Amino acid sequence: MSRQLHLNLNFLNAGTYGSAWRWPGGAPGDFADPAFYIRTARLAERATFDAVFLADNPALSDRPEYRPFQSLEPTILLAAIAAATERIGLIATISSTYNEPYNLARRIATLDHTSHGRAGWNVVTTADRQTAANFGQRGVQPHQDRYARAGEFTQVVKALWDSWEDDALIGDADTARFVDIGRVHRIDHEGTYFSVRGPLNVPRPPQGRPILVQAGGSEDGRELAAEHADAVFSVAHALADAEEYATDLARRARRFGRRRDDILIFPGLVTVLGSTEAEARRREEALWDLVPIEYGLGRLAGTLQIDPARLRLDEPLPADIPLPPDHNHTFFRGALTLAERGRLTVRQLIRAQGGGTGHRILIGTPEQVAESIEAWFRSGAVDGFNIMPDVIPSGFEDFAEHVVPALRRRGIFRSDYAGTMLRDHFGLSRPLSPHSRIGAEAVPA
Amino acid sequence: MSRQLHLNLNFLNAGTYGSAWRWPGGAPGDFADPAFYIRTARLAERATFDAVFLADNPALSDRPEYRPFQSLEPTILLAAIAAATERIGLIATISSTYNEPYNLARRIATLDHTSHGRAGWNVVTTADRQTAANFGQRGVQPHQDRYARAGEFTQVVKALWDSWEDDALIGDADTARFVDIGRVHRIDHEGTYFSVRGPLNVPRPPQGRPILVQAGGSEDGRELAAEHADAVFSVAHALADAEEYATDLARRARRFGRRRDDILIFPGLVTVLGSTEAEARRREEALWDLVPIEYGLGRLAGTLQIDPARLRLDEPLPADIPLPPDHNHTFFRGALTLAERGRLTVRQLIRAQGGGTGHRILIGTPEQVAESIEAWFRSGAVDGFNIMPDVIPSGFEDFAEHVVPALRRRGIFRSDYAGTMLRDHFGLSRPLSPHSRIGAEAVPA
Repeated sequence: MSRQLHLNLNFLNAGTYGSAWRWPGGAPGDFADPAFYIRTARLAERATFDAVFLADNPALSDRPEYRPFQSLEPTILLAAIAAATERIGLIATISSTYNEPYNLARRIATLDHTSHGRAGWNVVTTADRQTAANFGQRGVQPHQDRYARAGEFTQVVKALWDSWEDDALIGDADTARFVDIGRVHRIDHEGTYFSVRGPLNVPRPPQGRPILVQAGGSEDGRELAAEHADAVFSVAHALADAEEYATDLARRARRFGRRRDDILIFPGLVTVLGSTEAEARRREEALWDLVPIEYGLGRLAGTLQIDPARLRLDEPLPADIPLPPDHNHTFFRGALTLAERGRLTVRQLIRAQGGGTGHRILIGTPEQVAESIEAWFRSGAVDGFNIMPDVIPSGFEDFAEHVVPALRRRGIFRSDYAGTMLRDHFGLSRPLSPHSRIGAEAVPA
Repeated sequence: MSRQLHLNLNFLNAGTYGSAWRWPGGAPGDFADPAFYIRTARLAERATFDAVFLADNPALSDRPEYRPFQSLEPTILLAAIAAATERIGLIATISSTYNEPYNLARRIATLDHTSHGRAGWNVVTTADRQTAANFGQRGVQPHQDRYARAGEFTQVVKALWDSWEDDALIGDADTARFVDIGRVHRIDHEGTYFSVRGPLNVPRPPQGRPILVQAGGSEDGRELAAEHADAVFSVAHALADAEEYATDLARRARRFGRRRDDILIFPGLVTVLGSTEAEARRREEALWDLVPIEYGLGRLAGTLQIDPARLRLDEPLPADIPLPPDHNHTFFRGALTLAERGRLTVRQLIRAQGGGTGHRILIGTPEQVAESIEAWFRSGAVDGFNIMPDVIPSGFEDFAEHVVPALRRRGIFRSDYAGTMLRDHFGLSRPLSPHSRIGAEAVPA
């Protein structure tokens, strides 16, 4: 079978544009209404998407006076979605900075059991002051510390998922043997950030290990991805960026004994569709006109970590913006690069970012979008995309109805799911627990 | 309307008896199978139970070689149950010792949104060494510290639920006003254990505040219940114990400006049913015979925090067992009292505890059980029971089919739900956010 494209829905409440909630077709309360997420996830499943992906931040930080924001806790929302769907993957963003690995391993394992093998965890380190203030921190912890903790956190979570071998449950009522405790292992982790004895109190998840996703583009983020991730959500505004990223990730992965094929790469892709290119451009213009400029300015200032008063709408960015030490570097660098490449004014930059997103925006007909997706996919630099509709539901309905069939006609996207688990959709094999491997090796050939 | 009885299902995996999993009707994998919990919760809903209640402990600690244990993470499991039911309440046990209040407030608020107002949180402080070792603690924190943290934790969670006023969402697409941030409040909590700025990033839950449950019988536990709880899960082996507890709780509640009626009291009640008393006794005997004595002995030694080698099966308890400072005092005291009152040998004590539970066991016909429930209920000392079937499904099917109709005939238990939220089932009014109250008072009469 030829290599197949992967598509995830990056489900940002009413859609990616800051004005999406003002567009016809939705209701203001949708962002906190589980029924809205369930309806949309069902649509994504009918379009045979690999997964729905929920970004998250445990703070009220996206200027709620202007627009909806990520609100409901992702694992619980995904459990509700799991109950209303059968195949689509369910990826929850959870911060390694503000959680404990035992609790997190257990929640994701439970979601994997509840969904029969469709769970994934997107590891983020959460670099904003509002969140820090909700968790007793005076400020954001330094970048390197957050990633060191994230690496150790991920290692502990994997060990906990591996703590049960697949055949540990005996369940023999006659002999009263319930669990073979020789096949359930303590992890006895003693590290810099954590001391965790284990074992987990949840049997091995259906996927063995639920899918691990990583989304940071910094040095430390790439290292974490190279060592642990099954998939990365990247940022790439041009194919050259995506190629550089893929080459770099492959090089790093080799150092951990892994290959490029072991890690799927999905850049974010904002879509604005129209039945003609002119119609798509008019839609983008209308969406942009509805974004309050104060919102766009505030978002950009937040991304750059500078005082909004320093930004003049019809002038270029100030020349001397320093790299903020405790911040999201990917979107910081992305904004600077975009401004520089296009010689954009602040207003143009905000617009080029759809009023707030730091991801690439594609404006065009379904065929144009499908063509670009195919070109990037065939380059080998990406394995698919994290689709970010301009507006949900309308922009995603158009994607499902028109872009997905175009991709199928091109022979690069499935018409039906081949398996039942997210691992199957991603084409990744199910890992054995290292304890089981040791056991298997001990058996004489 | 006359005072009505409340019933919750205390859903302990295969049932309360250590041998429940060996009884016909279930499968060994049920304890970690969401479908089993969903089926049983639906049965509880058909029986118009107030809620399903999930105990929890984030550690593998109940001798898995002998019997099933609480495994799946409760909030996610309850989200799956919420999707498959419409009315029944959903109460999750979560430890205040091993979580952060912002995360917990958000998860329970999300469950409340997902279930349209059916969520509750049972605050526990988690007093065992296995759990401590999963969270980097050398030992269990002292009882008083755990409860001081639990009190502050609960206060922060309530403040976060109150941080959004009910009408904070404007959602006016024309004027681009999404949220009235004057009606979303920081909490600026600075305490001994937590520093939390808020506001929550989830709109006010449907119930205003989800239901707060407390389950400890110690001095500190009773104080926490008196100040914060909507309901308590208590331990009472005799009506006199329940009466003492109710009087004590009412006295404590007054000091916090609350009344006895503001707090529902539900003792745990293990049921073993038969169509005749003799049949029920035979069932109990058969269940007891299937409990491995090593399991019962280990559980008792754990409850008493002594070396199992100190216990002789056919002798009384040793005379000099000290109160363990960092342990669950309710079940410790309960075991000693039970042994003393009945002058029981160790073997008899283990049996009187159904092989492990510390709660009262009722063995008899549905009419006998209904009669006892009614007598306790009419005394005013309890408002209902936390029903703990000997075996799930069979023992709970019998309860739903035979005891529930008997209680309805006695005119003390509903035949249909009067409302949609857990607060409605419990007969508790929906609290306003204090911020809204201030606003309301400011309006001239």
